[in-house]
Amino acid sequence: MKHNDAVRLFAKTLENVQGWMDKAEAYAKAKSFEVVVLAEARLAPDAYQLTRQVQAACDQAKYAAAYLGGKQPPSHPDTEKTVAELRERIKKCLSFVESVQPKDFDGAEERKVSPPWLGGRSLRGDDYLVHVAIPNFFFHVTMAYAILRHNGVELGKMDYIGSLPLQEG
Amino acid sequence: MKHNDAVRLFAKTLENVQGWMDKAEAYAKAKSFEVVVLAEARLAPDAYQLTRQVQAACDQAKYAAAYLGGKQPPSHPDTEKTVAELRERIKKCLSFVESVQPKDFDGAEERKVSPPWLGGRSLRGDDYLVHVAIPNFFFHVTMAYAILRHNGVELGKMDYIGSLPLQEG
Repeated sequence: MKHNDAVRLFAKTLENVQGWMDKAEAYAKAKSFEVVVLAEARLAPDAYQLTRQVQAACDQAKYAAAYLGGKQPPSHPDTEKTVAELRERIKKCLSFVESVQPKDFDGAEERKVSPPWLGGRSLRGDDYLVHVAIPNFFFHVTMAYAILRHNGVELGKMDYIGSLPLQEG
Repeated sequence: MKHNDAVRLFAKTLENVQGWMDKAEAYAKAKSFEVVVLAEARLAPDAYQLTRQVQAACDQAKYAAAYLGGKQPPSHPDTEKTVAELRERIKKCLSFVESVQPKDFDGAEERKVSPPWLGGRSLRGDDYLVHVAIPNFFFHVTMAYAILRHNGVELGKMDYIGSLPLQEG
């Protein structure tokens, strides 16, 4: 798996999350409640709410594309409060992620990644992808899914996985 | 990222899950309830309970190691009902996963993967890793985490991520 493939997987998954937002809105409408209730829902009092989970998933995708592709990450302040705003945040994230080209990831394995939260230490690009970006991205995406499922939104595994590049035979 | 690295990541993460089981048991003891309550907990009436989430995470790791490493997957029936039994399931899974050697993954990218649920169709090894194994593995692991967090077990992000291969400077 190339670094480019991992970042494309993040982008594909965020497109899937847009579909979950459709289902969240349809569910709120069918049950006659404001969809912002779902945006503010959380699984525990000290756990992130849906908005923050989606923001964090976007950030994992954005920083992976930037750090591994050798680009400056754009600033996306966490100001979203509604499902409509989350959709825009995802679009903004995808727009940046898709601007990073496959060739930008050449040499990503050995690129030194030193985000501020590492306090001056660093990770090899490959280690950043394996130990930070992949697990964290899917953590926040799945927590968003879990919040919606817990609140009754009818999501299934294929909403999470999306399309597969199947071959006949 | 090599296929071997992805399978090692799954193994590392399952070791982390063993630590969550410690915390689940300590929490049940402190609150004076039977830890099997957590094993049977779920986020929605039609969602998998904790036991099934852990079984599914183990299966994703096992099948990735087998399909991509060109090995026959061992049969691990889903009979676990308790946290103690889940620990054993994880150990059994890790024992197989760790038996697959880095060199077994040579050529994994192009290996044809055709699990029964694809109904005769197939995926390239690299596509199986990217579109099936990675998202599904982290889905079930995070759902297990979400069930425990929702029920009050004090898990934090580092329990999920585990150790990082940091470099100084």
